[in-house]
Amino acid sequence: MAPSTPRLVIPVDVKKQPWEQNPPLHNRWHPEIPPVAEVKAGEFFRTEMVDWTGGSVRDDESAMDIKTIDLSCVHHLSGPIRVVDEDGVPAKAGDLLVVEICNLGPLPGDEWGYTATFDRENGGGFLTDHFPCATKAIWYFEGIFAYSPHIPGVRFPGLTHPGIVGTAPSMELLEIWNERERDVEENGHKTLPLCKVLHSRPLANLPSSTGCMLGKIKEGTPEWEKMAEEAARTIPGRENGGNCDIKNLSRGAKVYLPVFVEGANLSTGDMHFSQGDGEVSFCGAIEMSGFLELKCDIIRGGMKEYLTPMGPTPLHVNPIFEIGPVEPRFSEWLVFEGISVDESGKQHYLDATVAYKRAVLNAIDYISKFGYSKEQVYLLLSCCPCEGRISGIVDSPNAVATLAIPIAIFDQDIRPKSSKVPMGPRIVRTPDVLKCSYDGNLPITKNLSAGK
Amino acid sequence: MAPSTPRLVIPVDVKKQPWEQNPPLHNRWHPEIPPVAEVKAGEFFRTEMVDWTGGSVRDDESAMDIKTIDLSCVHHLSGPIRVVDEDGVPAKAGDLLVVEICNLGPLPGDEWGYTATFDRENGGGFLTDHFPCATKAIWYFEGIFAYSPHIPGVRFPGLTHPGIVGTAPSMELLEIWNERERDVEENGHKTLPLCKVLHSRPLANLPSSTGCMLGKIKEGTPEWEKMAEEAARTIPGRENGGNCDIKNLSRGAKVYLPVFVEGANLSTGDMHFSQGDGEVSFCGAIEMSGFLELKCDIIRGGMKEYLTPMGPTPLHVNPIFEIGPVEPRFSEWLVFEGISVDESGKQHYLDATVAYKRAVLNAIDYISKFGYSKEQVYLLLSCCPCEGRISGIVDSPNAVATLAIPIAIFDQDIRPKSSKVPMGPRIVRTPDVLKCSYDGNLPITKNLSAGK
Amino acid sequence: MAPSTPRLVIPVDVKKQPWEQNPPLHNRWHPEIPPVAEVKAGEFFRTEMVDWTGGSVRDDESAMDIKTIDLSCVHHLSGPIRVVDEDGVPAKAGDLLVVEICNLGPLPGDEWGYTATFDRENGGGFLTDHFPCATKAIWYFEGIFAYSPHIPGVRFPGLTHPGIVGTAPSMELLEIWNERERDVEENGHKTLPLCKVLHSRPLANLPSSTGCMLGKIKEGTPEWEKMAEEAARTIPGRENGGNCDIKNLSRGAKVYLPVFVEGANLSTGDMHFSQGDGEVSFCGAIEMSGFLELKCDIIRGGMKEYLTPMGPTPLHVNPIFEIGPVEPRFSEWLVFEGISVDESGKQHYLDATVAYKRAVLNAIDYISKFGYSKEQVYLLLSCCPCEGRISGIVDSPNAVATLAIPIAIFDQDIRPKSSKVPMGPRIVRTPDVLKCSYDGNLPITKNLSAGK
Amino acid sequence: MAPSTPRLVIPVDVKKQPWEQNPPLHNRWHPEIPPVAEVKAGEFFRTEMVDWTGGSVRDDESAMDIKTIDLSCVHHLSGPIRVVDEDGVPAKAGDLLVVEICNLGPLPGDEWGYTATFDRENGGGFLTDHFPCATKAIWYFEGIFAYSPHIPGVRFPGLTHPGIVGTAPSMELLEIWNERERDVEENGHKTLPLCKVLHSRPLANLPSSTGCMLGKIKEGTPEWEKMAEEAARTIPGRENGGNCDIKNLSRGAKVYLPVFVEGANLSTGDMHFSQGDGEVSFCGAIEMSGFLELKCDIIRGGMKEYLTPMGPTPLHVNPIFEIGPVEPRFSEWLVFEGISVDESGKQHYLDATVAYKRAVLNAIDYISKFGYSKEQVYLLLSCCPCEGRISGIVDSPNAVATLAIPIAIFDQDIRPKSSKVPMGPRIVRTPDVLKCSYDGNLPITKNLSAGK
Repeated sequence: MAPSTPRLVIPVDVKKQPWEQNPPLHNRWHPEIPPVAEVKAGEFFRTEMVDWTGGSVRDDESAMDIKTIDLSCVHHLSGPIRVVDEDGVPAKAGDLLVVEICNLGPLPGDEWGYTATFDRENGGGFLTDHFPCATKAIWYFEGIFAYSPHIPGVRFPGLTHPGIVGTAPSMELLEIWNERERDVEENGHKTLPLCKVLHSRPLANLPSSTGCMLGKIKEGTPEWEKMAEEAARTIPGRENGGNCDIKNLSRGAKVYLPVFVEGANLSTGDMHFSQGDGEVSFCGAIEMSGFLELKCDIIRGGMKEYLTPMGPTPLHVNPIFEIGPVEPRFSEWLVFEGISVDESGKQHYLDATVAYKRAVLNAIDYISKFGYSKEQVYLLLSCCPCEGRISGIVDSPNAVATLAIPIAIFDQDIRPKSSKVPMGPRIVRTPDVLKCSYDGNLPITKNLSAGK
Repeated sequence: MAPSTPRLVIPVDVKKQPWEQNPPLHNRWHPEIPPVAEVKAGEFFRTEMVDWTGGSVRDDESAMDIKTIDLSCVHHLSGPIRVVDEDGVPAKAGDLLVVEICNLGPLPGDEWGYTATFDRENGGGFLTDHFPCATKAIWYFEGIFAYSPHIPGVRFPGLTHPGIVGTAPSMELLEIWNERERDVEENGHKTLPLCKVLHSRPLANLPSSTGCMLGKIKEGTPEWEKMAEEAARTIPGRENGGNCDIKNLSRGAKVYLPVFVEGANLSTGDMHFSQGDGEVSFCGAIEMSGFLELKCDIIRGGMKEYLTPMGPTPLHVNPIFEIGPVEPRFSEWLVFEGISVDESGKQHYLDATVAYKRAVLNAIDYISKFGYSKEQVYLLLSCCPCEGRISGIVDSPNAVATLAIPIAIFDQDIRPKSSKVPMGPRIVRTPDVLKCSYDGNLPITKNLSAGK
Repeated sequence: MAPSTPRLVIPVDVKKQPWEQNPPLHNRWHPEIPPVAEVKAGEFFRTEMVDWTGGSVRDDESAMDIKTIDLSCVHHLSGPIRVVDEDGVPAKAGDLLVVEICNLGPLPGDEWGYTATFDRENGGGFLTDHFPCATKAIWYFEGIFAYSPHIPGVRFPGLTHPGIVGTAPSMELLEIWNERERDVEENGHKTLPLCKVLHSRPLANLPSSTGCMLGKIKEGTPEWEKMAEEAARTIPGRENGGNCDIKNLSRGAKVYLPVFVEGANLSTGDMHFSQGDGEVSFCGAIEMSGFLELKCDIIRGGMKEYLTPMGPTPLHVNPIFEIGPVEPRFSEWLVFEGISVDESGKQHYLDATVAYKRAVLNAIDYISKFGYSKEQVYLLLSCCPCEGRISGIVDSPNAVATLAIPIAIFDQDIRPKSSKVPMGPRIVRTPDVLKCSYDGNLPITKNLSAGK
Repeated sequence: MAPSTPRLVIPVDVKKQPWEQNPPLHNRWHPEIPPVAEVKAGEFFRTEMVDWTGGSVRDDESAMDIKTIDLSCVHHLSGPIRVVDEDGVPAKAGDLLVVEICNLGPLPGDEWGYTATFDRENGGGFLTDHFPCATKAIWYFEGIFAYSPHIPGVRFPGLTHPGIVGTAPSMELLEIWNERERDVEENGHKTLPLCKVLHSRPLANLPSSTGCMLGKIKEGTPEWEKMAEEAARTIPGRENGGNCDIKNLSRGAKVYLPVFVEGANLSTGDMHFSQGDGEVSFCGAIEMSGFLELKCDIIRGGMKEYLTPMGPTPLHVNPIFEIGPVEPRFSEWLVFEGISVDESGKQHYLDATVAYKRAVLNAIDYISKFGYSKEQVYLLLSCCPCEGRISGIVDSPNAVATLAIPIAIFDQDIRPKSSKVPMGPRIVRTPDVLKCSYDGNLPITKNLSAGK
């Protein structure tokens, strides 16, 4: 018997541009994007992926690539992969596709990544009203560890995972997506309980032919033109899985994905060496190219058996998953708390998003006391293995969210000290993150207590 | 040297009514509630607490006590405890009070608890629009384990913790609270981005003399009358800690609380044998009476040193804490995901509360396939050691929240099976939770796909 | 239904002498020691225990009690407890007794313990040839934590457990024990591959009426005289469980014990707040009085079903157990290694005992560089939650054993530093352990490299 | 800056024979084996290794290769690697070499391994008197997981590690080794407390030119002839580290190795996909070819600073190490116990080796009740991530050793059941391990209770 070397079903070449890859990449969800590979249930296979921007961000000493990034073409996905059972019969709508992540990692020869936050006029991030400038930090990998010249004094093992694992939507599901997202885009400001402390714009990312890549469907053909107008952007996670950015989807994890089209048409991408819960800076994981080694199984009729739709149609489901047995082990955590009162002091109602924003702001200010710039901490909390929890969601009017940070990632003890000796000024951690100017005119949220 | 038996500074007698306890309890936050005990920094002491309702809920076979509960008098807190340093100098405003939880547990002789969800007209819960009836499950403790006759087939070790640890607010902070909460109560429906999928009411719980207990301040005195109109309800967590319901605040954890008044005036209560992140059913932990064994320390000037205010005043801070070294260990987790699309299919904007609601609903429906009623699962997920995470908060328009459930708490394997054999009907887990009728007229949120 | 307060089946009073306890204690294994209590399968009950010496060791500032201790009367056990099934039918020989440890801890009001090593002429310890003097350290408990005034700079959560859980032997098993241990005692020096690096003496502890306590059997009666000559000492672990000193037998663990006599006759004792693997200093855990909260179950015919005898009779079995879900969590460990070459440089053959001795000696010398006396470290490694592993047992001629120490128990970082700056002299940790002189004439094992 | 791709300093080609590799391999320890590569402190580099037998064992359906294996040429090591500091100054005798294992794994394209036990006449294993036949099981890797067609029903994540990490000995140390091992080989049977329950032979593996490989030193030259007579075999772990077979030396671990010769001359080999404590079947891990990604650092003068010699010379030291942050996580363990009474019922004196043998035998018999042959379980316990502990080493005359097995590696629940229903015959797990006949005449240790 041969050793179980995974069959490489989708290679990439990081020296090439996204549109030069063979098989071709895609950056939209659409049922008619043709599969570029086929695997059998039980087969052990490997797929490679470029980083989510397809190489737009460089390992250099400037954040200008972040500031001027073209987000119309993200995420660059590998696939779709058609999945058939051991008899060659494809997965069918209504089945459940089991995807086991047997292994994953950076691509050999490309062991680096980046964490960034976008300019407020071009993507922003969770705290873009506080940090409107584009910033970037480069990370290098030493096996399981990552370290950054731009955020000195931290080094940690990665909880590596794909940001995106998803099946192709059916046409019906695609229409549901487009309709509901168009509604929030067009009417959100007026009619919806938008979270006013969030400042990203646009509200949704609707289909657009600009930057659209549809795999084997050639750009410019009538088929492409039609599909490009319909195909969903990959930014949000949805019923098909997609960009869920669940940091624990790592080695040994299993995902149970609903199947909407024949063959399931599995796509993957957006590899993260590490990410914190929430991925707060938006380009917020340690973004990298990488590989996945997978095994698929098909549970026939599994959607009905295991997934209860929650919404107007049987398509309103969500994937479920199991966490794998190999995650970095941390014992000691420092935890920051936020309640749903915003920076102006205004009370919000059981709003976990506001509460989490405040928890993250609290953590940034605290850790910056240990010699870091706030921008360094913002990027760090976005990509280190910190845990974001919804702790209390019923005690009106305050939601309580918490952010737990593993103490061992720092080269100093960041706990409060009971000592009677004041801490005094700390060593400044240099160099800082790479940073651009913000040239827009939007008001910055100031902490009213700053300087007090 | 004597053994380090903790000094019992506040006893309770669970056979007595809350107002009969000596020292007296309190159920409001106010700077002028006099301390009932004093401890020194470094001293090892013990405080006892009645359950949050002060004994209103009984170990019987009916949920009528839940349906008709009087929430005006919760939570029944023990304290305040005045904290002084080793020289007898009290903690001062601006200090940080370190509270180490050396041990905790149920009161000997009272080893039981309850989980419940209130009637929609009287408190409700996170999913009250789906589950408007009052329900109750009783739990019995066998050492570290809890089991319920009303939710058969599960038994788990407790991550026991106090729902409430807090310091007294200053008058200035109290006024900030009352003002901002009055604003949400009065104007919320019109002006605020309320989360429309939440149906608790009222929006806030404003000061009210009904049910008010102020410790040594005698009811009916002019002092009491004045304070009762000002004193904040204990329902929400706030700047002073309070009802944060953070499940990991267990054995060995440390809390760093801001000090707003001389002596810090520490109060504790709302003991939970176990709770899931979010405490979704509202009366949602395994609620019990219990004890805490604590050590305090004072970090002079620590608020300025360690806590950055986030808001218009230096009082807009939040506590921080460290997780303890002894928590139940689980290796295998089944994870449910929710996105910020509500049950009607409507798109919300990066709303983690909506996303978490959907994750919980998904989990309830899934687990109910294994022989449980949905009410059983709702209460179970509220009180078992499950983890609620904010996984993605930047991928417009969907927030992604996840709910991770430890598989080992069940006596059956609840994972999806790849078997080709359909699962078939399962054994119904009886008896069910105790349940009342819902007599109100509010519309129930129906899952539009139910029965499809 | 009443709360599940455990029924106290065996109380102790630590203010009384061992022989004054009611029900009476026993310190020998014998099938005819009458049960002092009866429990039903499934019943939740509590038993209390004095410390193993029955109060001989005091919380004072001298180790003289250790030096002059009378070991003829250890261990003081509570029980036997007769176990019957739900119909009242007792456990029978050939059954398996399942004992679940639901909870345990120190006795309220007696929250202290001690770690000691005996004088070489009176019990000794694993390293008695290096450390012939009696020494003692007192520990105080603060909830889950222990600290010692005699070993400053460490504080750790306990992995609390009973050193002894056992069933009564049958007469046949008792005779097997006495015969084989008499053989090693009488002929060991001549005929057996004794481990020459161990220096404890006598080789075995044979039955002796001196100090013998047999529970309800009154001293001086003919029955007592007969039984005292037969009853096995409780020092070693054997087929019935007994003094296994397995540190992971803590909260939530289950033991499956063979049943040799009707009713199983379960006895427990030798409570440890914490212990390291090996319990190297002999009086080596944090020894204390304490309580156990237990549930028993009977697996009828379970010995045949689950335990395979390994030896000449069906009685040559060993218990099995499951580890509980609540143990202190440590992430970072420093590991010391030993090979089976002794202190003189002599090669031994795959001898894990020699290898472990060297690993412990290596660890003691290393940690003593951080300001501790070697006696302090010897006692510390005996009682802190360190792990002793048999790493390699097949690579002739060296066995490799390892000792892993959790770094977080120290208040300083004990890892080797890559710094080019020499570490220099360290602060001496005072006071030291309590210590007596050694007045014997046996040669002390000197490290031949000391001072080099 | 370039990505931190590790520099490949030693490649291997698994399609070639060991003597064809370039750079050349070595299978002995000797100070004069010339380095084949040089690395700088802080440099991130990669080394590859053939499996310990150099390809003698094949992925086929017979154990004949195991039965007839030539052990004179194991282990095939890669190196030595000379280590210099950042200024190019080599490590010196007396320094400490810090080796961080940043990553490791099987070689791409060679993702399989084997576990075996040798014929009693040719190497044997820990239980060779019970299992005298050569047996073999093949394992295939699926990312982090391993499974074997010969031991069905188990699959587990690897705790992958190198069996051998070591520095070159000085001539003085080499002579110490040879002298002490010659002594045990020649006089052991007469003079030493040999563990009589162990049946491996010879007692030691003395230098021998048969099969000797010395890297760049050409076979047949006078230099080779001289060195081959002196060079130590690599079977046992010793002062230089070497074949310690410590299973936790995995991703992220650090080893602190003594330096005895200029440049340290680091060698590595004997890669294990997974191993249980003790590696009981001798060829007992999942043996494989593989790679290591390492970083070295030099602590100048670190031997004196951190390692205390334990023996007649300053060379009698042992390495220390730190465990890494990424290990498979298991929550539930079934634990088997052994005491130092052997299979004939004879009492041994505090002999941890005898106790561990009995614990392993107990575990084998127990698990074989679940449908496995004893040979399957013997190999499984040798290579799965089970933990072997020295639990009690002071309770004369019994040492207590324990073997803890993670329950989750099985596809069935192997815990004892309290059910009143007898378990009945179980499904036989087929196929069995590959097995040869034993043609020798040595008596087999029979369990005297077998069949009772």
